[in-house]
Amino acid sequence: MKKSLLSMILAGAVSAPLQAADWQALPDVAPAPKDNPTTQAKVELGKKLYMDPRFSSTGTVSCNSCHNVMEGGDDSRPTSMGVHGKTGGRNAPTVWNSAFHSVQFWDGRANLLEDQAKGPVANPVEMGMKDVETAMERVRRIPGYKAEFEKVFGKDGMTVDNAAKAVAAFERTLITPNSPYDRFVKGDKTALSAQQQRGMEKFAATGCTSCHSGAAFNGPKMPFGQGFYAKFPTFSDNDYVKKYNLMADKGREEATGKAADAHMFRVPTLRNITDTAPYFHNGSVNDLGEAVRVMAKTQLNEDLSDEDVADIVAFLSSLTGEYPQITMPRLPATKGTSILVQ
Amino acid sequence: MKKSLLSMILAGAVSAPLQAADWQALPDVAPAPKDNPTTQAKVELGKKLYMDPRFSSTGTVSCNSCHNVMEGGDDSRPTSMGVHGKTGGRNAPTVWNSAFHSVQFWDGRANLLEDQAKGPVANPVEMGMKDVETAMERVRRIPGYKAEFEKVFGKDGMTVDNAAKAVAAFERTLITPNSPYDRFVKGDKTALSAQQQRGMEKFAATGCTSCHSGAAFNGPKMPFGQGFYAKFPTFSDNDYVKKYNLMADKGREEATGKAADAHMFRVPTLRNITDTAPYFHNGSVNDLGEAVRVMAKTQLNEDLSDEDVADIVAFLSSLTGEYPQITMPRLPATKGTSILVQ
Repeated sequence: MKKSLLSMILAGAVSAPLQAADWQALPDVAPAPKDNPTTQAKVELGKKLYMDPRFSSTGTVSCNSCHNVMEGGDDSRPTSMGVHGKTGGRNAPTVWNSAFHSVQFWDGRANLLEDQAKGPVANPVEMGMKDVETAMERVRRIPGYKAEFEKVFGKDGMTVDNAAKAVAAFERTLITPNSPYDRFVKGDKTALSAQQQRGMEKFAATGCTSCHSGAAFNGPKMPFGQGFYAKFPTFSDNDYVKKYNLMADKGREEATGKAADAHMFRVPTLRNITDTAPYFHNGSVNDLGEAVRVMAKTQLNEDLSDEDVADIVAFLSSLTGEYPQITMPRLPATKGTSILVQ
Repeated sequence: MKKSLLSMILAGAVSAPLQAADWQALPDVAPAPKDNPTTQAKVELGKKLYMDPRFSSTGTVSCNSCHNVMEGGDDSRPTSMGVHGKTGGRNAPTVWNSAFHSVQFWDGRANLLEDQAKGPVANPVEMGMKDVETAMERVRRIPGYKAEFEKVFGKDGMTVDNAAKAVAAFERTLITPNSPYDRFVKGDKTALSAQQQRGMEKFAATGCTSCHSGAAFNGPKMPFGQGFYAKFPTFSDNDYVKKYNLMADKGREEATGKAADAHMFRVPTLRNITDTAPYFHNGSVNDLGEAVRVMAKTQLNEDLSDEDVADIVAFLSSLTGEYPQITMPRLPATKGTSILVQ
């Protein structure tokens, strides 16, 4: 059905979905929870904590190690590598525009960036600390952090929750507006090439927008904590499922224990998708065109032509926006001693 | 002898060595070899290469991982941790002001920063690549680097030597001028506290300046490639040698194979020494005061009093300068594919 609809659209038989779809530009500012307004001082503190590797057991892994803001907000690896070269089971989601997700992690097991930030610290294959409080003890032992926490959170402000708030505040500034797509939907009709516009039509007509809608292409706007999930794969009777091992990870079921959540994953943003290979929760596909082909088949039971794939990839390339310049923070020193040595 | 000289000086019996010693401020610009002038475009390219972890076998280790410019130019670890959690045998020297060293590495096995930059890439416990040419192949496969290399080095400029030149050019900008000490020797007599000035006198009177002289406190100015080495420990008949395992590493002998080079090490800079704990080639001492005590004993056979140590530490703290602000580079993306996946 969808396929014939696509053919009809391309033949001009029905109105193109460019108008029909609800194309939205990326907001310049990310929403923040009421109890954690984004302030400059908080962002600066959060940036330091985000970049500081001293809160991992080995002193070698920071948030930025796997969610590198100098790159696409991830690490270019199929699955991330934490302390002692250990690897996790899932592909690092990009931190760019993560503020536009209403839940965090592939399985939505954290509601807010504030909750997410605490997870990797104590994960044995990520930052490998005994627990997040032990990491916070290290923060407290670094004199330079004390003044900053007090400035932002007041006296006795050096808590895990406040550290997470600061990191989340920094992450909410990691937004990439003004992509060619954004300029196009704001009225600059020259911002997309003819092929990209064809790809945009095909993206909608194929049905990709049924999940990848909204400003971040990660589904409709939801309240924080309410996730937008899709079953992946939805159609499992195809060669891709075996080839890319798509049934191994139970997705949200692993977080909730509910059979109904089997293979449910949060719909990821497609913003800057050109810069976040390899793709999928298991990082099994290392080509954006192949990822498009696999998604069309496993989610919509569509077999895309090479031309369709090329056009959609061209459109997806238009979602790569402007990364803001970030000044490197100076991480507060422990004068004359290292916090990593007992 | 030295001890009694120190006592006499402190008693005012002889003129203080503050005048006698050749106290030098840090230059604002680092010297560069004739065939690699420091240009802005080259520095920007070098900064990217320096920060880019994709040239390690796992994609997780960049130059900055162990020589973190957000910290004291090192990693706060006794010995560094490279790919797969492997550790090396020596403490990471700071990259800050490394341009003022006339040879590189603890054992001086590289003459220039250009030579040094190639070393860690193929070291199995550091970046773990098969060889530096294999790493360069990765650089060549990242389209964004091509234009930058051509801009800086001309057509066919994507070579290992040029990559090393760019990294070295970036490193030559990593200078920390305007420390309290620098302001003091330039004439601001209020820049050092009374204790710091006492420590400065004791530092010279004890004999520390016999090795730690010059603007970077790493010895006299030498031509590139000619190292200034000291035997460590010089006096081995004391408890520190065993306690801190100071005889295990043969130093420069391991690089040259010459018995005469046994336990010879390049004299390290003391600039920003408060920010580079733990100390020594093996990172065995995690307290600057203890490091001062050990050095006085093993190098000068002096037993410093606690007061002397405190004063000298106060002086050494005045060598921590102003770290320049660095803008994070954007690492060129491989669009729609990851270079880390075969």
